[in-house]
This record gives sequence, C-alpha cells and structure tokens, in this order.
Amino acid sequence: MNAPATNAMTPAYAALERNGPLVPWQFERRAPRPDDVVVKVLYCGVCHSDLHATGKWGQSFPLVPGHEIVGEVTAVGSAVSVFGIGDRVMIGVIVDSCRVCQPCRDHMEVYCREFPTQTFDGVDRVDGTRTRGGYSARYVADQRFVYPLPANLDPAAAAPLLCAGVTTYSPLKHWNVGPGMTVGVVGIGGLGHLAVKFARALGAHVVAFTTSPAKVAAALALGAHEAVLSTDETQMAAQAYRFDFILDTVSTTYPMTPMIQALKLDATLCSLGIPDRFDFAPLMLTMGRRRLASSGAAGTADTHDMLAFCSAHGIVADVEVIAMDQINKAFGRLARGDVRYRFVIDMATLAP
Amino acid sequence: MNAPATNAMTPAYAALERNGPLVPWQFERRAPRPDDVVVKVLYCGVCHSDLHATGKWGQSFPLVPGHEIVGEVTAVGSAVSVFGIGDRVMIGVIVDSCRVCQPCRDHMEVYCREFPTQTFDGVDRVDGTRTRGGYSARYVADQRFVYPLPANLDPAAAAPLLCAGVTTYSPLKHWNVGPGMTVGVVGIGGLGHLAVKFARALGAHVVAFTTSPAKVAAALALGAHEAVLSTDETQMAAQAYRFDFILDTVSTTYPMTPMIQALKLDATLCSLGIPDRFDFAPLMLTMGRRRLASSGAAGTADTHDMLAFCSAHGIVADVEVIAMDQINKAFGRLARGDVRYRFVIDMATLAP
Repeated sequence: MNAPATNAMTPAYAALERNGPLVPWQFERRAPRPDDVVVKVLYCGVCHSDLHATGKWGQSFPLVPGHEIVGEVTAVGSAVSVFGIGDRVMIGVIVDSCRVCQPCRDHMEVYCREFPTQTFDGVDRVDGTRTRGGYSARYVADQRFVYPLPANLDPAAAAPLLCAGVTTYSPLKHWNVGPGMTVGVVGIGGLGHLAVKFARALGAHVVAFTTSPAKVAAALALGAHEAVLSTDETQMAAQAYRFDFILDTVSTTYPMTPMIQALKLDATLCSLGIPDRFDFAPLMLTMGRRRLASSGAAGTADTHDMLAFCSAHGIVADVEVIAMDQINKAFGRLARGDVRYRFVIDMATLAP
Repeated sequence: MNAPATNAMTPAYAALERNGPLVPWQFERRAPRPDDVVVKVLYCGVCHSDLHATGKWGQSFPLVPGHEIVGEVTAVGSAVSVFGIGDRVMIGVIVDSCRVCQPCRDHMEVYCREFPTQTFDGVDRVDGTRTRGGYSARYVADQRFVYPLPANLDPAAAAPLLCAGVTTYSPLKHWNVGPGMTVGVVGIGGLGHLAVKFARALGAHVVAFTTSPAKVAAALALGAHEAVLSTDETQMAAQAYRFDFILDTVSTTYPMTPMIQALKLDATLCSLGIPDRFDFAPLMLTMGRRRLASSGAAGTADTHDMLAFCSAHGIVADVEVIAMDQINKAFGRLARGDVRYRFVIDMATLAP
C-alpha cells in the first residue's frame, strides 16, 4: 500500500450553514481502510441534489456536495485488487450499503433495505462520520463503489454519467426499452438530455416533451425523433395512448394528467424528479390500467452496465466546464434551468 | 324470435334529478335488435357507483342505476345463438364498445379507446338513447355483453360478481397473484370482501387492511390470513417491504404513504376506488422502484374467466337482500359503510 498523508487536510468547497453560499473550507478525510481507494478528484458534476442539499435537504453543516466524480487513484488499501495508482475512476451517488439484504446481494444497492450510504451528507457505516462529497481535492471510498472510467470517454463529460446517467439508464433498461417501442422523455435538462441519448441508442422511437419552445430544436439535435411542447393542449391531446414508456425527469409538481393519458394500455410513466407531490386525476390510471412508478439512481450492477453501454455508443453528457469559484453563480443558473445540460467543475481550479 | 311487447313501458326506480331520491318511474326499453337478449331482472346489486351516479357523477336525469344484474331471458333477437328463453344470465357494467380497437379485439372492452357504453347513464351506440340500468323490470342488451349465470351459484349473491367481483378479480389475475405471494387487500367492503375471497382461493397469503376494529375479525372470517388495523402506526410500520401486490379498494383520499411503503421492491399497489386524488410522498415510489396502478372493471374475457373461477370455488358475495322500496335507506347505509358487504335488490318487489 502506498501510504497517503492520512492527516493531511483536504481542500473543499462547503456550505457552512443551510442556504449559505459555497465557500472554501477544509476537512480531514479518513485514512484508507484495506478495501479503500484514494482518489484525486479531477472533475465533479453539479447535480440538482447538490443545490437542494445546501438548502432544505441538508442534514449536517458544513456540507460538501458532489456525487458525480471522476478522478485518478493516488493510493489503495491493502485489500484492493482491481485498481492501481494512476487509474482513472468514477464515484457516484452511493458509497456503501448494508451488503446483506436481498437488493444488496443482487447488486441493486440503491434499494438497500437499510438505506445506502450517500456520497455526501451521509453517515459512514464504519466510523459514523459524515460523508463529504466531490467538491474537494480527494475522495476515499470502498473499491466496491468505485468504477473504472472507460478509456474512450472524455473525463469531464463522463462525470454526469454517475448520477444523471445511471438514474435515467437504469429505468430504461428495467422497462426493456428497445426497438419497436415509442418512448417519451419529459424535461430536457441534465437527466433528460441523457435519457434522450440512451433511448435513441437503445433503438426506441424517442419523443421529447418540453415546456420550452427553445428546447424543441435542441431535443431533436440530441437525437429525439420528435419534440412536443407539453404546454400546448392540441399537441398533447394528439399524444393519447401513444407511449409504451415515459421517463419523466421533472422535479417540480406539474399538471401530469395529459402525460399519463399519453400512455398506452398497461404502460408506465416513471418519474425521477421526486417532486413534493404528484398532480393527476386517478381516473387516468384506471383508463388503460396505466402505472406510475419511480426509480433510484441504480446500484453497482446497472452502473457497470451503463458505463459499458456509454463506452460502446460514445455517450457522454453535454457539459459546461466551470472553475470551482464559479459554483455559486452556477447554482443560480441551475435553479433557473439555464444550463445545457450539466455543469462540471474542473477541480484543478480548487486552490490547495 | 319470441316477440316482446316492444312498446310496453318498463317499471323502474329512478333519480328524477341530481341528488334526488329514487322514486318509481317508467320508460320505454328499445325493441330488441337481432343480437339482443331481453332479460327479466331478478336481482340487481347496489354499487357505490349507483350512489355516485345519482349525485355528482350523473350525466342525464331521470337516471336509472344498476349494473350488477341477474335475470332470466324472456326473448332473443334473430341472430342470438348462445342464449334461449328461460336461461339465467348476468349483465355487468358495460353493454357495448367500439369492437374494433385493439383492447376490444383482445376482449378487454372496458379499455375501449372510444370508451365503452355504460350499462346505465351511457349513450347507446346505435340509436343514441340514454342507457338505463338494472333497477328496472327488464333489460335489453347485446348477447356479447350477457353472461350465463353459473348453475351452482345463488342468483342474489352472484349479482355483485359482475361489478365488485370482476373489478377485483381482473387485477389479481393480471398481476399474477398466486401461491408464494403475500397480497394485501385495503378496505373490506363490497369490493374488498370479494378480493379477500379471490386472493385466498388463488393461493396467496392474504392480509386485510381495515380502519375499522370491528372488521378485523370479519376479515379473518372471510379468509384473510392476517388483518391489520391500518390506522395503527406500529402495525403499519411492521408491514414495510412485505407485499408482492396490494389491491386497494378505498374510494376516498387517505394517507397512502404507509401503504406504498408496505410494497416490496418492484411491487405494485393497484387502487380501484378512483378517489379525487392520491395522497402520498413520491419518494415512497422511488425507494423500492414501486408502482401505483389502477384498473377498470374488466372486459368480456376476464368476466367469463371470473365466473368460471367463482363456479369452481363456490365464490359469491355476502349480501343483504332488500326490497326495491328500501333503496333510499340502503343508499344512506351504503354512504356510511353500514353493509356487510353488498345490498342486492330483489326485483320481484318492484311494483308493476
């Protein structure tokens, strides 16, 4: 084992209090355990969860966000077999789980019965400390939750795959999206733009739904076969009974009845945005025996599967790379939906 | 064809106006067409839909409710092959559909894209007249939507099978309920008590959920293996991740989060009651990739299948037979949930 400086302080950006701005901060990462990998963070994607975490979702402050991590291995624990120093790797939204419940045994750790350990603002299962995210110079994680970065993917553009990517890929695979199916993607943002790319690469006929006239052309450019302005009642009425599956990435409550009505008999709308509540008429489920579902960010099996798929199809996110000190401005733009389609922080810009 | 008195007036009970009481009334049934069966109504079940139809759901008044009909064939049209005079038959919630859309071709006519013709307060597809239900001396319906009454079933107790029965049987079959599955039934009323009997006969481990302490023992007597008081937080917390399928028959909005939490990974809660809205935390679907669904009262294929199942297992509803002139009192009791478990009108008590 290459001994890291275990007591070195780790530079980071943190919200010192709820709703506070992100400011330079530092903290002590744990010394690596036998199964741990020490990763120098190169890029970290900016997720809506980061924004929410510094606000109403946050559990403990100071809070260091970031769970779309691409980095380079700088040290490994004594039991680490699959990674070596210098490897390019990725870390996503969870870094541990109970490992013994059925979902964990099935490598669907995001559905761990004991709730998985979140990459930031979670509680480490071994030492009880608060986890701190990728807006920092390095991360220490168990090798089980570390993934090799496919060599042919741009590291900055790949970072969002570990949250936005796997969150959309997993349900598309679970509901068997493929050739001969008509699939809707609602909301063309960080998640939605990747969902369009995945659904297209899986062979489905892809229809993007957006409330933004400016995103109609953008959705087509991403690979959607059609784009529908979901605020247009006439366009929406024409969608009734068309869809085998709809992936909804909207994180706010919106009038969902026309979207459910767009499902075929026995089809499913999977909502990923976790709004405060859903707004739809229950009768819309009855007519057509339709289903409303949701799904989490996926476990290790789906994450490995997705990375292989992205490597084979050359799929990465469309990103805007920013410097660390631009994060508060980026949060403001993210809150307004002003990004195409994901901010990624170049962590080389983090002052030591 | 045995010529009926085509111009004879049909005695009935009707709501003359919205929210009005049911009173004696009469109207002219259509003369039978070639595919029609004329049925003397012997028994008619009293469904919550009847109550709602005389109130907020009603489209056109006077309105004659009733869609759980058991009767005797008194005449048949020239093209009717499967029924003869004197046959005991049943008619349920729909009496026609477009017949050409895919659900119709699959004999799932309740999901007809053009919406099926309801047994009462619907619009006849041929002559445009308003359909009038089974709270009447006779009914005229196309043979496609008429079913033989299994000979071994009590006619009064069988009547509710055509709505409450098939509405619960259809989703239990669709979601493959059977041995090795743990199935919940929420609400032990007209629908729920039949759902408990069906799920038990299908071989599942059945858990009844009720808000009424008095119904705990009643649910066990119906065949439930366990009964849970759903208002008891401790009992509900113990149900988390237990169920392969939950059939929810509650027709009002209630706090549904603990019920969704009772589902296993990838399991479905099917709500049949069409409340005004659902009240649950979307995150409950995300945790466990759970699904919320609904389903309709089933088409002709499921109805035939259910009647064969009921005949084989001796399943009928638990009913309280009433006279026609007791209907307003029965509606009052139904609104308060004071019936075990279904009122059925003995139509011999209808004055000519």
